[in-house]
Amino acid sequence: MKKHNFSAGPCILPQEVFQEASQAILDFDNSGLSILEISHRSPAFVAVMEEARSLALELLGLKDKGYKALFLQGGASMQFLMAAYNLLEKKAAYLNTGTWSTKAIKEAKLFGEVVEVASSKDQNFNYIPKSFSVPDDADYFHCTSNNTIFGTQIKDFPVTSKPMVCDMSSDIFSRELNFSNFDLIYAGAQKNMGPAGTTLVVVKEEILGKVSRAIPSMMDYSVHIGKDSMFNTPSVYAVYVSLLTLRWIKANGGIKAMQERNDKKAEVIYAEIDRNPLFKGFAAREDRSPMNATFNLTDDSHKEQFDKMWKEAGVNGLNGHRSVGGYRASMYNALPLESVQVVVDLMKELERKV
Amino acid sequence: MKKHNFSAGPCILPQEVFQEASQAILDFDNSGLSILEISHRSPAFVAVMEEARSLALELLGLKDKGYKALFLQGGASMQFLMAAYNLLEKKAAYLNTGTWSTKAIKEAKLFGEVVEVASSKDQNFNYIPKSFSVPDDADYFHCTSNNTIFGTQIKDFPVTSKPMVCDMSSDIFSRELNFSNFDLIYAGAQKNMGPAGTTLVVVKEEILGKVSRAIPSMMDYSVHIGKDSMFNTPSVYAVYVSLLTLRWIKANGGIKAMQERNDKKAEVIYAEIDRNPLFKGFAAREDRSPMNATFNLTDDSHKEQFDKMWKEAGVNGLNGHRSVGGYRASMYNALPLESVQVVVDLMKELERKV
Repeated sequence: MKKHNFSAGPCILPQEVFQEASQAILDFDNSGLSILEISHRSPAFVAVMEEARSLALELLGLKDKGYKALFLQGGASMQFLMAAYNLLEKKAAYLNTGTWSTKAIKEAKLFGEVVEVASSKDQNFNYIPKSFSVPDDADYFHCTSNNTIFGTQIKDFPVTSKPMVCDMSSDIFSRELNFSNFDLIYAGAQKNMGPAGTTLVVVKEEILGKVSRAIPSMMDYSVHIGKDSMFNTPSVYAVYVSLLTLRWIKANGGIKAMQERNDKKAEVIYAEIDRNPLFKGFAAREDRSPMNATFNLTDDSHKEQFDKMWKEAGVNGLNGHRSVGGYRASMYNALPLESVQVVVDLMKELERKV
Repeated sequence: MKKHNFSAGPCILPQEVFQEASQAILDFDNSGLSILEISHRSPAFVAVMEEARSLALELLGLKDKGYKALFLQGGASMQFLMAAYNLLEKKAAYLNTGTWSTKAIKEAKLFGEVVEVASSKDQNFNYIPKSFSVPDDADYFHCTSNNTIFGTQIKDFPVTSKPMVCDMSSDIFSRELNFSNFDLIYAGAQKNMGPAGTTLVVVKEEILGKVSRAIPSMMDYSVHIGKDSMFNTPSVYAVYVSLLTLRWIKANGGIKAMQERNDKKAEVIYAEIDRNPLFKGFAAREDRSPMNATFNLTDDSHKEQFDKMWKEAGVNGLNGHRSVGGYRASMYNALPLESVQVVVDLMKELERKV
């Protein structure tokens, strides 16, 4: 049975990517060797890393604009720490829009003063705070572009003269933005970009080298830049599969085309959430994420029936996060509209049945 | 043509592992989903992580002895930093046996005083220093069990009352040791354990919690232990392939049988290095590593000819590291004796030809 994978991350990747990724385990690039057993210093893998770094910048429209792309390890959680290590001299400004922002704030506090410019915690993070200002003496401003757990997304980023740092783990490569407004972007691969195990960091070089502390090598963006993202052995396979996914994005029309597909999927599911009296959306309408649609039953007594229905239909990963309950449909780039339609049809079927 | 992969790491893994690893990309465990697209919180992956952690301890003989196994990201380079973050209050003792020890020392110095108890730098690290003492006031003693670049290995570890920390990246699971003499063992997976992208950390819990500094979450072994190695999204695929490799080790007789195979391979290649007048070994005989045999031509004018011979024979990764020159035959667990015999035959053939 065909599976419809709504997993929040790690998550669905393009089927073509799985085919090529599987083949490379047996024989990479007709080398007679597995991608898992080649040296990371081999010309074949150096080419993979360089193409991945270059293609990431190209897709984001950041080539030749003073940015470097790195593929590091440790996920966004490691970036909470690295961002502060590299940029926080005295004070940083953080927007708190959910679980991941809260964790980023916690780590940054070990390095200096953190001003929470606004928070939507008062309403269980179901909206994005809009009116706030970034202190003049902040070293940088940090935000989370998309909140996987709560299903909210920042639509308009603040304008600030301070370096803007953004955790884009769950919506990078999914929508067009003026990425040159950002100075540091990081994203765990395991949503729109690849498998778990590597993290894309895109940094404007001019913001580095301004803190007075000694930075451990592995924490230092400049060290990784100086070694072309190969200061130590990278997560070879995760970088390779990320490259395959980035190539797929480019071949399928780039970020613009991804956004069109994603907007269509979001339109279809949110229309049903709003129409169907058995369901209600969790996030504030204007802040709804096209990546993660969060919704609950209006009457929890239908839960058992609905859960049985979608599981029998081959739907995977529709359970909501425990902080929100209900359901979460994660609709990353590789999820086809057809899968969304399957869930919408099940929602309609439930309505007919009850 | 069959390849003989002597790559120093990432390196050869068992062929059976590649088969199963490739299949899981298309369909993991008959789930209808790729291992790359399942949630790390799914019961199927939680089972993978738990089995990998448990099997690592079992193979090392450390079950029920107060140790925890973790699969983290960042390689040994991250452990240089994490070990010091967690254990270095005032002073630490390090044995310097090469490039990796030197790097570990550099990172530790950011956290406290580092005493280099001995170093073999005076002879380009071609031997293991034997007589040294660990200061009574050291928080821990750190050493590197096997030096990939120079081809040396510690045969007898010092006896000390201090916690013993060991970077076993390049020889873990390759030889029997009394692992309970160590308090913290770490190893990048990409030699005997799996692909690049995950790092095994085995830590005796009683040594933790003794430093006064605040430790960032991602740097804190206790945080990772408290979350069963799932504080954040792990490197799913690298952990899975490591589990396949650990199962292969167990099914093939465990560490004892690995050591027997490795000793045989080492015997064959070092015998030829010593016999053949065209070659000379780099490392001191008593410190030779069964994992990485380093050797040079006695007359460099044969280099072009020999390089052509082994490349034409399907041998991969025999070039020495630039710090040593010449050749390096890395003979990790999965490398068959047959591959070593191919190189030995080529060495004999060169002797006949010149």
